[in-house]
Amino acid sequence: MRIDIISVLPELMESPFKTSILKRAVDKGLVEIHFHNLRNYGLGKYRQIDDAPYGGSAGMVMMIEPLDNCISELKSQRNYDEVIYLTPDGQTLNQKIANKLSTLENLIFLCGHYKGIDQRVRDLHITKEISIGDYVLTGGELAACVLADSVIRLLPGVLNDEQSALTDSFQDDLLSPPVYTRPASYKGLDVPEVLLSGNFSKIEDWLHDEAIKITRERRPDLLQ
Amino acid sequence: MRIDIISVLPELMESPFKTSILKRAVDKGLVEIHFHNLRNYGLGKYRQIDDAPYGGSAGMVMMIEPLDNCISELKSQRNYDEVIYLTPDGQTLNQKIANKLSTLENLIFLCGHYKGIDQRVRDLHITKEISIGDYVLTGGELAACVLADSVIRLLPGVLNDEQSALTDSFQDDLLSPPVYTRPASYKGLDVPEVLLSGNFSKIEDWLHDEAIKITRERRPDLLQ
Repeated sequence: MRIDIISVLPELMESPFKTSILKRAVDKGLVEIHFHNLRNYGLGKYRQIDDAPYGGSAGMVMMIEPLDNCISELKSQRNYDEVIYLTPDGQTLNQKIANKLSTLENLIFLCGHYKGIDQRVRDLHITKEISIGDYVLTGGELAACVLADSVIRLLPGVLNDEQSALTDSFQDDLLSPPVYTRPASYKGLDVPEVLLSGNFSKIEDWLHDEAIKITRERRPDLLQ
Repeated sequence: MRIDIISVLPELMESPFKTSILKRAVDKGLVEIHFHNLRNYGLGKYRQIDDAPYGGSAGMVMMIEPLDNCISELKSQRNYDEVIYLTPDGQTLNQKIANKLSTLENLIFLCGHYKGIDQRVRDLHITKEISIGDYVLTGGELAACVLADSVIRLLPGVLNDEQSALTDSFQDDLLSPPVYTRPASYKGLDVPEVLLSGNFSKIEDWLHDEAIKITRERRPDLLQ
C-alpha cells in the first residue's frame, strides 16, 4: 500500500509514523508513506495557499490552484483508488470503512485546515470524504494519522499474533469483555473466580455474556 | 489547564504537541502537557507492565500495579477533575464532551495498549472512558492527541479570530456549507453567483440553506 498525505503541516505527523507498529510497517515495506507539503505548491513569492472566502464569512479557505496542482501531479504518476478528504462533514469512519480501505493499493489523504477547502476541489478530485468523529480538530493532520493507523494495522504482516486484530472491539459488533491479569488479588480487589477455574467452556460463556452485557449497557446501537 | 498523559509510547505523541496551534497553546502557558512513561513504573528488572490475561484469551493486558502506582502518585500531588481512559469501549467523543472538558482544570489521559488494562484499574481510578470513534487503533496515543486537540483549541486565547471556533461544524448541530475563494472562475469551474452578489442577507440565507441541505443529505441524524 502507498499513502500520499497532502498537508500544510506535515511535521505534525512525524512522530506517529516513526514509532512502534506504524514504524515497523514502514520499515518492513508493507506501506509507503509520502508527505507532500502544500506550501510547495503555493502561489507567488509568499507561496499563498489560502484566501478569504467569497460571501464574507469568517476564516480562511484553502485555494483551488495549489491543491489542483499537487493532486494532479500525483495522479499523473499512478492510479489512485481513492482521494480522501479528511473533514468533519465527511462520512463517519468505522471499522468497516477501515477494513475496506485496507484492501486498496494507492490512497491520497488530504488534510483540511482553516474553514476547509474550496468546494471546487471536492467536485474535481475528491472521491471520498471521511470524518473520524463528531468533533472539530485544529486541522486534518491528526485525522489522517488516525485513519492511516486504523487501516495500516489491518495489512497482512503488520500485527503479530499477540496483537491479533481478530478479537478487537467492533470486528464482531460487540465491545470487548473485561480483561484481568496477575496478581489474582491486589489490595483486596480480586479477579472473578470463573477466570481462575480452568474450565474453558465456562470461561468462554462468561466472556461472551460480559461482552453482550457491556455492549447493551454502553452501546445498545451496536446490537441493532 | 493541565493534562497528564500516561502511555507506554510517549514518543509517539511528540510532534503533534510541538506544532502549530497546540505548540502555541503550550508556549503561551494556556495548557501544560506532562507525559508519563508507564515503563518507569514497571515491575522488576525488566520493568514489566503487561502480562497474559486470565482465562486464556489472546493478547496481553496492562497490569494493575504499575498503573495504580503511576495514577496514585499523580493524585497525591493535586486533585484531578477526570481520570480518562481512552478505549474503543468508551463513550463516543463528540463536541459537547469536548466543550465540557475544556472547562476543567486537571485531567489525566490514560492510553490503552494491547488488549486493554486490567479491569480493576477501571474500577479503582477511571472516572470517564472515551472512544474517539468506532474503529480500532494500535494504541490510545493518537486518541489522546485527538482528545487533547479537540479540548485545547476551545481554551480561551488559543485560537485567533481567523480560526474562530464559533462557526465550526457541530457547534450548531449543522454541517458547514460549502466554501469558495479566489479565483471566481478556474478551469471552467465557477463560484456560485450569489456569493459574488454583495447581497449579504441573500448570502446568509443561501449559506443556511446549503448547511441544512448538506446536513440532511449526509447526516440526517444531526437534525433530529
